[in-house]
Amino acid sequence: AMVDKGVDFANYFCTYAFLYHQKEMLSDRVRMDAYFNAIFQNKHHFHGKTVLDVGTGSGILALWSAQAGARKVYAVEATKMSEHARTLVKAHNFEDVVEVIEGSMEDIILPEKVDVIISEWMGYFLLRESMFDSVIFARDRWLKPSGVMYPSHARMWMAPIRSGLGEKKKSDYVEAMDDWYGFMEDTKTHYGVDMSILTKSFEEEQRKYYLQTSLWQNLHPHQVIGTTAVVKEIDCLTATVNDILEVRSNFSSSVTLENSRLCGFAGWFDVHFRGSGNDPARQAIELTTAPSIDNGTHWGQQVFFLHPPISITEGDELKVSFVMIRSKENHRLMEVDLGCEMRQSSGKLLPQVRKRYYIE
Amino acid sequence: AMVDKGVDFANYFCTYAFLYHQKEMLSDRVRMDAYFNAIFQNKHHFHGKTVLDVGTGSGILALWSAQAGARKVYAVEATKMSEHARTLVKAHNFEDVVEVIEGSMEDIILPEKVDVIISEWMGYFLLRESMFDSVIFARDRWLKPSGVMYPSHARMWMAPIRSGLGEKKKSDYVEAMDDWYGFMEDTKTHYGVDMSILTKSFEEEQRKYYLQTSLWQNLHPHQVIGTTAVVKEIDCLTATVNDILEVRSNFSSSVTLENSRLCGFAGWFDVHFRGSGNDPARQAIELTTAPSIDNGTHWGQQVFFLHPPISITEGDELKVSFVMIRSKENHRLMEVDLGCEMRQSSGKLLPQVRKRYYIE
Ligand SMILES: Nc1ncnc2c1ncn2[C@@H]1O[C@H](CSCC[C@H](N)C(=O)O)[C@@H](O)[C@H]1O
Ligand SMILES: Nc1ncnc2c1ncn2[C@@H]1O[C@H](CSCC[C@H](N)C(=O)O)[C@@H](O)[C@H]1O
Repeated sequence: AMVDKGVDFANYFCTYAFLYHQKEMLSDRVRMDAYFNAIFQNKHHFHGKTVLDVGTGSGILALWSAQAGARKVYAVEATKMSEHARTLVKAHNFEDVVEVIEGSMEDIILPEKVDVIISEWMGYFLLRESMFDSVIFARDRWLKPSGVMYPSHARMWMAPIRSGLGEKKKSDYVEAMDDWYGFMEDTKTHYGVDMSILTKSFEEEQRKYYLQTSLWQNLHPHQVIGTTAVVKEIDCLTATVNDILEVRSNFSSSVTLENSRLCGFAGWFDVHFRGSGNDPARQAIELTTAPSIDNGTHWGQQVFFLHPPISITEGDELKVSFVMIRSKENHRLMEVDLGCEMRQSSGKLLPQVRKRYYIE
Repeated sequence: AMVDKGVDFANYFCTYAFLYHQKEMLSDRVRMDAYFNAIFQNKHHFHGKTVLDVGTGSGILALWSAQAGARKVYAVEATKMSEHARTLVKAHNFEDVVEVIEGSMEDIILPEKVDVIISEWMGYFLLRESMFDSVIFARDRWLKPSGVMYPSHARMWMAPIRSGLGEKKKSDYVEAMDDWYGFMEDTKTHYGVDMSILTKSFEEEQRKYYLQTSLWQNLHPHQVIGTTAVVKEIDCLTATVNDILEVRSNFSSSVTLENSRLCGFAGWFDVHFRGSGNDPARQAIELTTAPSIDNGTHWGQQVFFLHPPISITEGDELKVSFVMIRSKENHRLMEVDLGCEMRQSSGKLLPQVRKRYYIE
């Protein structure tokens, strides 16, 4: 599918043109620490090397690469944020090392191949935004055969959770429908038009909005009520776009909590900085967005709620089938198909629950 | 300037594809009453006539036109909302009268010229959204020489006001800047990068967002502290796009309140249904979005705040110069240049205040 550049800018890139938004990412200590440590604890990967920063934003990763001794850094940014990156680079006297290039990764030309590609491309639940496509493109075109990817690996995780937010959304939904019925009455009484024929469509719209859209949460680890599962593993050095177009996983999770309620499933990710097989990191670094008491990130977790919650207890077995594809209307958004079957410790099998979700 | 259709859909039309959004307009009693009365108290304009509804949305105005006896109604809608309009029309057994056409007004072809063009094209402060362009286009192409416009006239109003919202925004702005200074410190201490060079750009961004973006308010009439002025008058039968590309007005306002504060200026509009010179309405109807205790609308007023407020009192004279143009990046948004000079009743002239605003 061809992507209209102008539309992609209006829908996606526009937010990245604001310092306010870059600042949010730059204030995420978990994210920052991981990239900072990955670079400065593995200076051998940068010292004297050529580096490509895919989507440099404010220029932070390019600047760190230069500070770690890179010979040359190409810092590519699609939005006008490139101008701020250039200013920041200059203020640190690295204008001879860091070359900021405004343009789409897919369009621009570099004067040479590079030793390292660094990028912070991860969206909600890893793949939202589909920005990894651009990193793959950059790798296939501009990374030397001996080159290293930063990060080098990525994984998607899921686990059953409990949370009150689902009920909140359910009650918002009920309220929206109540409101509709009042509106229908009024419109009929005052304006002679009977809207009831649109009730089903309105309900679908509201259902999608309140009940089928995955929600951002920074969960407490206690809210995870079963074993966690990896649903996707990505080797950034070899993965193709085709590998990430669809994520498909069947996994099991054992409930680890007594007498609780299964409210839904949370998805998160981690990425790793391990260098490559031939050129490993001296110090492997991990960036995780798992539920955490002190180390929450701006990514949080994406939660797919079940309505209503299901009573469960320790020892129950959940068999989950998960499929995530890109939305046809916008390749940077996702659609999820989630099926869940539960076998109680007594051996009783509950009927499967299936639901469609949207990661918007 | 050419408008990219895909971008215009992503930025503008998308919201209108939701019943939720149409419902908001359909729940605006002031709006609904005005169109309802305009049609049903002037049935002679509709009975046996052909009508074009520009941007039919849910189909409400097309349906009313049919109920008022129209022979044929062409109901044009750019978004998928057209399908709901068709369903609604069918449920009222008007499918032989109302023809719903999905497409842009600028692209579609009608089988005949029409007697009446009806449209609810008004955005915030009348002209935001620039949808009246499409109505002008429709009129010039499809309205019979003897035809009538619904509404037939429109006016933009301004007045000096007091409101606490400006100070709220000011303090939000101050907080955002305080936050930036903390962020700068942290980034320097922990990550060896000095962001101070971007402070000015961040400040500009935040200033634009918090202080220079006009705000929606439903003001109480008591918040209007001076005489009101018409800044633009539009005859919908004759206005050209050129006439509305720019709104330019110099007006005076006398302060009508003792010892108050001038916090800014509010802009609103009214439209009128008077038929045409040759074919006047039997019952002229007005739809006003002026500050009102009981008859607020979803349009509210757009407020342009001065920072800080200025002390004023009864008898002070405000000389205001107002210029509104379309934003270069998005022709549906506006930029405003506002200058204000104050002559105190003592005769003393305060220095002019000038400010740039964005209607986003
Ligand atoms: N195909 C592409 N070409 C160029 N820039 C891209 C791109 N896809 C995404 N981007 C940019 O990549 C950035 C991702 S956000 C990360 C910014 C920065 N590297 C940091 O770590 O703080 C955004 O600024 C976005 O505009
Ligand atoms: N150029 C154009 N062609 C077709 N539809 C347009 C248009 N510009 C705006 N619209 C549509 O016009 C509608 C304006 S909102 C008004 C809806 C309806 N007439 C009512 O009064 O309730 C939106 O649904 C929008 O999608």
